[in-house]
Amino acid sequence: MILLQPRNPDFDKRARASFAEQDVMGALGIVLAELEPGRVVLEMPFRDDLTQQHGFMHAGIVTTALDSACGYAAFTLMEPAAEVLTVEFKSSFLAPAKGTRFRFVGEVVKSGRTLTFVQGHAYAVSSDAQVLVSTMSATMMAVTGRAL
Amino acid sequence: MILLQPRNPDFDKRARASFAEQDVMGALGIVLAELEPGRVVLEMPFRDDLTQQHGFMHAGIVTTALDSACGYAAFTLMEPAAEVLTVEFKSSFLAPAKGTRFRFVGEVVKSGRTLTFVQGHAYAVSSDAQVLVSTMSATMMAVTGRAL
Amino acid sequence: MILLQPRNPDFDKRARASFAEQDVMGALGIVLAELEPGRVVLEMPFRDDLTQQHGFMHAGIVTTALDSACGYAAFTLMEPAAEVLTVEFKSSFLAPAKGTRFRFVGEVVKSGRTLTFVQGHAYAVSSDAQVLVSTMSATMMAVTGRAL
Amino acid sequence: MILLQPRNPDFDKRARASFAEQDVMGALGIVLAELEPGRVVLEMPFRDDLTQQHGFMHAGIVTTALDSACGYAAFTLMEPAAEVLTVEFKSSFLAPAKGTRFRFVGEVVKSGRTLTFVQGHAYAVSSDAQVLVSTMSATMMAVTGRAL
Repeated sequence: MILLQPRNPDFDKRARASFAEQDVMGALGIVLAELEPGRVVLEMPFRDDLTQQHGFMHAGIVTTALDSACGYAAFTLMEPAAEVLTVEFKSSFLAPAKGTRFRFVGEVVKSGRTLTFVQGHAYAVSSDAQVLVSTMSATMMAVTGRAL
Repeated sequence: MILLQPRNPDFDKRARASFAEQDVMGALGIVLAELEPGRVVLEMPFRDDLTQQHGFMHAGIVTTALDSACGYAAFTLMEPAAEVLTVEFKSSFLAPAKGTRFRFVGEVVKSGRTLTFVQGHAYAVSSDAQVLVSTMSATMMAVTGRAL
Repeated sequence: MILLQPRNPDFDKRARASFAEQDVMGALGIVLAELEPGRVVLEMPFRDDLTQQHGFMHAGIVTTALDSACGYAAFTLMEPAAEVLTVEFKSSFLAPAKGTRFRFVGEVVKSGRTLTFVQGHAYAVSSDAQVLVSTMSATMMAVTGRAL
Repeated sequence: MILLQPRNPDFDKRARASFAEQDVMGALGIVLAELEPGRVVLEMPFRDDLTQQHGFMHAGIVTTALDSACGYAAFTLMEPAAEVLTVEFKSSFLAPAKGTRFRFVGEVVKSGRTLTFVQGHAYAVSSDAQVLVSTMSATMMAVTGRAL
């Protein structure tokens, strides 16, 4: 149903190298947990210094991880010379982002030559439960040799 | 045109106190620059450790600041006992977030008793220019005495 | 995983009665095909008079059907006295809306007392294929006794 | 601030011709009221047969008009050979769409070679007031010689 055929045989190496260049991932403690064609999973532990006024993870931090999960999910299916840019995303916040750690899943819905549509799901994980706390609907763009 | 009449005479004090409790603002270097009924401006300097793979500020960091700008703009018009939660937002990315510092403006479009619609604009500021890099359309919720 | 317990034993009757009052559904030829707690399916045939400039169904018509599918999916889980209003939605357009008929599926992701998060999928159906042409991410609101 | 320089000297003629080919506009009674580089205004009267369950114009109909207003606003700035496609849009619903007629304004926020970001505002007009009922944030794509 969904074409998940990589256009780039080196997609794994290239996506991991690009992810490693996102300095913000290190600053926030977000790591790459899984990577396959059209799907990327990121993880991060809860951090007291990234919270909003009620002590939960800030919606923007959840969104930062979801954006990278969705962006690299799209990137795995792009042509060898392409760079990935975020065109736009929408995030909905279903439940407070409280837990000991978080899991962010980005999955391609439709991969076109220029645009890729991706969905994201963020889960708060505690010792006994995994709760869906946020969803994302994103558009990513393949850019080659020029800016947006 | 837009009703910007605060429902809470202490809106300024309460919004500043709540903003101070968002630990993530301090961690990212985001400060409250302006606050009035229905409008909040945040600012932050460029930081190398918050960048994406091309050296620009990560879209999620821009979004984190826009979310707080929009959330507190909504909060200034809420009833005294209300807390503010982000229901959802959409962000569009018009240009790379490069500059020496950034300015985030949140402005209420419609303030209801329960829901508030807010728009956000993020600007990259350099010595000779201010460029609109991102827009946000957000829904905020007033919550009193219970969770979403 | 998702709580799909109706708060109203008469949900089926009430949702069908409300749908019947949406005059625009009749005008566009959209019918209610399936209804269960948290999930609604609408269908419509292709119509030449509802097309955009390339002869495909207009994105807004697809969105009209998705909005009602999502709204009534939310409505099935609301309290007896509640009315449903659309707070906002985002639609992405993955492929041209061409086909002999269309199928619109609305499914609740999270049902809260006041707000319900819903996802929608629109499919173009032809004799030999069903293609996903659009996705929706929507927020619906339960309103009792007063307007938004 | 915003580049509103048409890339096509025939933009007016081409946009009006394309709008005339959107059969759905005629079916819904939506007409082109104003057209200039980067800005389009559409209008329509209230119609009983396009209402939702409370007797207001259905959110999807408002969105249909906003989508075309935003799409043609983008189209006025595209290259001569380009066609315009809607990538995605988000609509927020601030107030019930009740009035004797409606006015839909689409305005380009950023026009790129491939993607155009547009904002839309829908107003309900009655004898003594004009009320903002809906906003749209949309991404439009210029397509030349091939599909999305």
